Amino acid sequence: MSLMEALHWRYAAKRMNGAEVPQATLDTILEAASLAPSSYGLQPYSVLVVQDPTLRERIRHAACNQPQVSECSHLLIFAIWTEVDGRHVDELIALTAAARGIDPEELEGYRQSLHAAVAGFTTPEARQQWAARQAYIALGTALTAAAAERVDASPMEGFDPPAMDALLGLEEQGLRSVVLLALGYRDTQQDRLAGQAKVRWPRERFVVEWSGA
Amino acid sequence: MSLMEALHWRYAAKRMNGAEVPQATLDTILEAASLAPSSYGLQPYSVLVVQDPTLRERIRHAACNQPQVSECSHLLIFAIWTEVDGRHVDELIALTAAARGIDPEELEGYRQSLHAAVAGFTTPEARQQWAARQAYIALGTALTAAAAERVDASPMEGFDPPAMDALLGLEEQGLRSVVLLALGYRDTQQDRLAGQAKVRWPRERFVVEWSGA
Repeated sequence: MSLMEALHWRYAAKRMNGAEVPQATLDTILEAASLAPSSYGLQPYSVLVVQDPTLRERIRHAACNQPQVSECSHLLIFAIWTEVDGRHVDELIALTAAARGIDPEELEGYRQSLHAAVAGFTTPEARQQWAARQAYIALGTALTAAAAERVDASPMEGFDPPAMDALLGLEEQGLRSVVLLALGYRDTQQDRLAGQAKVRWPRERFVVEWSGA
Repeated sequence: MSLMEALHWRYAAKRMNGAEVPQATLDTILEAASLAPSSYGLQPYSVLVVQDPTLRERIRHAACNQPQVSECSHLLIFAIWTEVDGRHVDELIALTAAARGIDPEELEGYRQSLHAAVAGFTTPEARQQWAARQAYIALGTALTAAAAERVDASPMEGFDPPAMDALLGLEEQGLRSVVLLALGYRDTQQDRLAGQAKVRWPRERFVVEWSGA
């Protein structure tokens, strides 16, 4: 199946059948998320992977009681880094130099521009919004990779982030949850949305072709 | 080539060779963006497609003079809808009923919950941040689809949104630019980043496996 067929096949499954996504497939989806581009390459977020059923039941209470939290195979929680500063820049520079086999000194100009960038956010809120957007690029990439693997993926914003962060102790780890992705397999019997026609704005509404001059 | 090979192949090309992306390929990438999921299915953004070289030169001035704005084949501008309200909900409900061949009355409960949702943002800023995140899911999806088509795609946040919006008259159209995506083909001679090792946080930094209990 082509990627486009996979994207037509996918939908946000609200009911799943509890079957387990194989570890190798999960790893592929996580690798796809990791390969998503990010602003300055800083990837200012982590992806938490929750499989434990007991913990997922507790999470479900902070997530509008959505059944796919229990019925999925793995729940991914995209969580931004609440702080992003010069230490992260220096780590990234060291990692870049090592990956490319170059002297970190060659990256000094780049390092300074990244320091200026992370220091340039006007408020912590602005920086966190920026970080969340980067996480959403990875969300889109992971969703697409899941479809290519014929794994259902249900993105969820319908949850209480402070309650989730408290439940998982994320604040102490410098993390803040921004969006969830339930991975598993659709339950076509239970899910009234399974097999329904996909609804999208017509192309002329979605795409604006800019004519010259 | 598999999707994962495509994701390893892709990078944010800073220099492109000016070759044109075929219309059918462009259409595939735009369709992938359109198929991205969004909160409540509202897709509160449009994708502007700019090919005209003169306009792209002007845009480049609002985009930190980045060469790929000129050297790409098509520049996509993801622009959120500055207003999202009950009229959009009613349109979506009508579209859903038509696509699924059902009576809109059957969607009345759903319609009311969507009305409550779009009325529930505490500030226009909060609503626009929500809209921008939806656009970023489509950005991630489009990037991935471009890679699968062997088209280079350079996402760009480095631009002046108010200047861009003024240049394109977006405010009058109820739009606000949030992120750019240059589509084209890498210039491996000019781009010092072409062929460089990809740099990502190690898996243990990016992925947090949550152990049970």
